Amino acid sequence: MSSKAFQDCYPDDFAHCYGCGRNNEQGHHLKSHWDGETTVARFTPQPYHTGGVPGNVYGGLIASLLDCHGAASAAAAACKAQGREMGTAPHLRYVTASLKVDFLRPTPIDGELEVRGEIVEVKPRKVTVELSLSAHGDVCARGHMIAVQLPDSAARKQ
Amino acid sequence: MSSKAFQDCYPDDFAHCYGCGRNNEQGHHLKSHWDGETTVARFTPQPYHTGGVPGNVYGGLIASLLDCHGAASAAAAACKAQGREMGTAPHLRYVTASLKVDFLRPTPIDGELEVRGEIVEVKPRKVTVELSLSAHGDVCARGHMIAVQLPDSAARKQ
Repeated sequence: MSSKAFQDCYPDDFAHCYGCGRNNEQGHHLKSHWDGETTVARFTPQPYHTGGVPGNVYGGLIASLLDCHGAASAAAAACKAQGREMGTAPHLRYVTASLKVDFLRPTPIDGELEVRGEIVEVKPRKVTVELSLSAHGDVCARGHMIAVQLPDSAARKQ
Repeated sequence: MSSKAFQDCYPDDFAHCYGCGRNNEQGHHLKSHWDGETTVARFTPQPYHTGGVPGNVYGGLIASLLDCHGAASAAAAACKAQGREMGTAPHLRYVTASLKVDFLRPTPIDGELEVRGEIVEVKPRKVTVELSLSAHGDVCARGHMIAVQLPDSAARKQ
């Protein structure tokens, strides 16, 4: 696993995301890394992240973690396809075009969650990522994401 | 629009969801109502709910709002199909089996968001809901949800 998280390679002005931005004081600060050919991030929910059913995580947090990890994985995969490291110019920032989440079973709140991404396809401005979220070694949710690259002009301006 | 929110009809032990539970002190407290044949909820994001691109809402919040509104709409629709009001016994509580979100355009953070649900189908234990999220009158995201009823035994026990 590399030492620097994908999200810590985002330019400062793109690093305020509540889910994963290092510059958002209140946020989740999700950190994604390569782990071989797949990507991984870990997050420990707080007791107030409960869902409607006691003892389980609320669905919105699960979607949030998959979303942030997927978009970061897309940017990392696009850099890798260009043969360079995240954080080198030009900076690539991906946003979610679509995310489908299948909630397979309740996600227990009493421990660390592991989010994994598998890069399915890298096209010039579009990356497809398959995602999973596990608790205590059991896959509780799966995600399918299509992420698209922000235009260079937007990245330069913002 | 009826006066009591769907989520305020959940039994106390099912009302801790971070997204919409009245008994979660830190949560979003999303409130869903009927508006004619469709359902509606409104939420004003805070500045820290920003996404990676400044001025826009993070995708996880959008998914969260669609998720909570969709599951609440499913329960309300199931009650309606039985010819009774939410909050009457037996209590029905739905959870998300799958949620697909299409992010159509950036969602501006500077105002109230409106979430709407359209009930597509009510089966004995499964409800399909089409969802949208708008800002300043523009639809920014669409959702497609399949929600399933929690078993009665779970509802009684928890």
